[in-house]
Amino acid sequence: MEYAVRGPLVIRALAIEKELNKGIKKSFNNVIKANIGDAHAMGQKPISFIRQVLACVSDPSLINSVKYPSDVRQRAELLLSGCGGHSVGSYSHSSGIEIIRKHVAEYIARRDDGIPSDPQHILLSAGASESIRNILKLFIDKDGRNKKNAVMIPIPQYPLYSATIVEFGLGMVGYYLDESNNWALNIDELEHAYKKSLNEFNTRVLCVINPGNPTGQVLSRDNVEEIIKFAYKNKLFLLADEVYQDNIYETDLKFHSFKSVMKSMGEPYSQIELCSFHSCSKGYMGECGIRGGYVEVVNVDPEVFNHLQKMTSAKLCSTVLGQCAMDCVVKPPQPGEPSYDQWLEEKTAILDSLKDRARAVYEAYNSIDGIECNPVQGSMYAFPRIEMPQKAIDKAKSLNQEADFFYAMELLENSGICVVPGSGFGQKPGTYHFRTTILPQGDVLHDMLERFNKFHNKFMKEYS
Amino acid sequence: MEYAVRGPLVIRALAIEKELNKGIKKSFNNVIKANIGDAHAMGQKPISFIRQVLACVSDPSLINSVKYPSDVRQRAELLLSGCGGHSVGSYSHSSGIEIIRKHVAEYIARRDDGIPSDPQHILLSAGASESIRNILKLFIDKDGRNKKNAVMIPIPQYPLYSATIVEFGLGMVGYYLDESNNWALNIDELEHAYKKSLNEFNTRVLCVINPGNPTGQVLSRDNVEEIIKFAYKNKLFLLADEVYQDNIYETDLKFHSFKSVMKSMGEPYSQIELCSFHSCSKGYMGECGIRGGYVEVVNVDPEVFNHLQKMTSAKLCSTVLGQCAMDCVVKPPQPGEPSYDQWLEEKTAILDSLKDRARAVYEAYNSIDGIECNPVQGSMYAFPRIEMPQKAIDKAKSLNQEADFFYAMELLENSGICVVPGSGFGQKPGTYHFRTTILPQGDVLHDMLERFNKFHNKFMKEYS
Repeated sequence: MEYAVRGPLVIRALAIEKELNKGIKKSFNNVIKANIGDAHAMGQKPISFIRQVLACVSDPSLINSVKYPSDVRQRAELLLSGCGGHSVGSYSHSSGIEIIRKHVAEYIARRDDGIPSDPQHILLSAGASESIRNILKLFIDKDGRNKKNAVMIPIPQYPLYSATIVEFGLGMVGYYLDESNNWALNIDELEHAYKKSLNEFNTRVLCVINPGNPTGQVLSRDNVEEIIKFAYKNKLFLLADEVYQDNIYETDLKFHSFKSVMKSMGEPYSQIELCSFHSCSKGYMGECGIRGGYVEVVNVDPEVFNHLQKMTSAKLCSTVLGQCAMDCVVKPPQPGEPSYDQWLEEKTAILDSLKDRARAVYEAYNSIDGIECNPVQGSMYAFPRIEMPQKAIDKAKSLNQEADFFYAMELLENSGICVVPGSGFGQKPGTYHFRTTILPQGDVLHDMLERFNKFHNKFMKEYS
Repeated sequence: MEYAVRGPLVIRALAIEKELNKGIKKSFNNVIKANIGDAHAMGQKPISFIRQVLACVSDPSLINSVKYPSDVRQRAELLLSGCGGHSVGSYSHSSGIEIIRKHVAEYIARRDDGIPSDPQHILLSAGASESIRNILKLFIDKDGRNKKNAVMIPIPQYPLYSATIVEFGLGMVGYYLDESNNWALNIDELEHAYKKSLNEFNTRVLCVINPGNPTGQVLSRDNVEEIIKFAYKNKLFLLADEVYQDNIYETDLKFHSFKSVMKSMGEPYSQIELCSFHSCSKGYMGECGIRGGYVEVVNVDPEVFNHLQKMTSAKLCSTVLGQCAMDCVVKPPQPGEPSYDQWLEEKTAILDSLKDRARAVYEAYNSIDGIECNPVQGSMYAFPRIEMPQKAIDKAKSLNQEADFFYAMELLENSGICVVPGSGFGQKPGTYHFRTTILPQGDVLHDMLERFNKFHNKFMKEYS
């Protein structure tokens, strides 16, 4: 089991940081961590509304102070009224606080143009990761039949999936995203991968990440429809990782949730089994450390859902403060409310800035000889391709390393930039990539792209 | 997989609450939830220092206000300096924030009379439960050899263990606690259960809960020594659930951590593999919903420890606010610091009150005909025994229920008191118990004990 986003490169990056702190001289004076979608760590400021509510529910004496706007204080009161003994220190129901689940359902219905959502089918969790793991756990086959249950995942994928699939002893069926077409999800490839998998596996689950991680593409509505038809035809359980639903940067693109498309397609497609995940770690809020998230469970067999609830009950509950943060995300201040203007200003500034950075990163990488990069339509990542010189491939082989790992490690040692090699996400054999976030801000981003350019040219010269 | 603490009785209790809210008349006008160790839900007030620090790290603008004492503000600053980008919204290292792990290690060393603890062997988690699950996960045997890896657990036990063991496909080996001797842990019984288990299992782990849950006993130092010798002799991995280490009510009893006893015994006992768990959910703080906890991993093979760290890294990190709460627990205000007096007053009041309630619960149950109850030496629970009339046993059987489940359900329906039947924790065949918390406060506790008395006498009359 490997988890590239936290792998050897990150460990080395931390060590280099300590070396720099000790005064060891290098050709750079700081490490730029472009390896993980950790917005606040890269200087993004939290949304005030969220943090003020968290402060109030933590110390309810603040509710009676005049420091905070009235909607902050009212929200804190409302959330506390959902807590046992009026305290976030009480266990919540293991599915989460009822009023928050109701707010999540209202959010989903608003997002999906009025298609209803049932709070009873919302489960809050510590980030989306926990929910994703809980859902995948349902497919662990304890009977040990001939063919393993398998999960289809995009290649490249987010390593939470591969790591969890391996941990749970499930089968893994990769389908390639189409790099030559902006990382589109090609149905023929899906069909091909699925059919091939049946020799070995009982393929049960189709996982789609939209907007894409690490690939940043945004699925068109037509594409989502095709995927739903494919899932229906093959009786696949759809696992829609939609945690980047707020992170779309191209003005002519829109987020289409699987739930809304499926429901608007009508019978029989509206009946497919679907789980959709969301989180307070991404979007404009970037509250990774707070650990808020949820899954909406749609059309799942009541007995399976019951089992899922039982499973989560053994974990008591997810962090109540994380649940409260999720509440602020799904029910932000509304026009006319005292916090609205500030909230909108903060949100817009962050999303605008991410949009600028998405474009800057794409343009910078794409302008470099020997690097090709698709536009970052959404999410927080670019996944540029390196035209790896044969000499570098040979050198890596001699070190018993993947060539992109070798490249990324050289990049780190020589320029202080920490990215994740493509091999941690999966890629077509013979191609080499890396994932970089678009999160470094202003001068740091500029500096990063310059350092990168310099390193890359030197690398290509050395290994051509 | 069952999780009694959240089982059918609790579901029914919530339904009854809703009925009462709708105005449906019953012989009682509220439900008393004595089923779960959820202190704040039962009216216990949070410790101000913890909550003020949480408020400050949530909204750092509070640090510069004069509202809070300087040690609160300094602590918040210190914690933020350990967070990426100075924000609790950043992911922490997957083992937890370094400075907090250091504080945990210092706490352990203070608690254990100077025996050192290594911050590198502390892993923070969302409550102790998550750590316990992570450690048990190490024993999942994917090779499917002849004999399953098995875990020894006390009977009665806390159902997190049985539920997790079943979920992970491990073998479960119960050893009976000695009810006739204040639920002591008898080494002969341990030997007996272990030897018997070897026919079926590869018994690898010994789990001890001290102070006991649901049984409330506190192990003597001699007893801890015996257990360590037993573990050493049989090469067992010791899993010490010590989350109630602050909850000891009898003045002549003391908490002896397995780590301190083992280390002071010297070689070879000081070398046994041990994991010890602690939490911010219990003690005097009772911050269940905040989800703070840790495990100290002692003498574990470096390769296994490395695997454990890899496993946790796929979960990114536990809630940073939960980690901050844990910090306040392991490093409370010291004499002379501005928050000290209030902290000490709050802590002492809670522990004194718990002590009174431990005694009141014990005395009340023990005074009832047909109920026998051991003293509540520690933790938050009593586990009284019911002399179940044969007619009640027969009646339960006719309903396809355990007799203690039948009893607890009748108790709930007729008095509004929610407890957990002993069968959810395990008990000697032919004996019947229930677990009740000692958490109801003042008049509520009084009311509960009166209602109970009335119900029990009626029940005994009906079924004798």
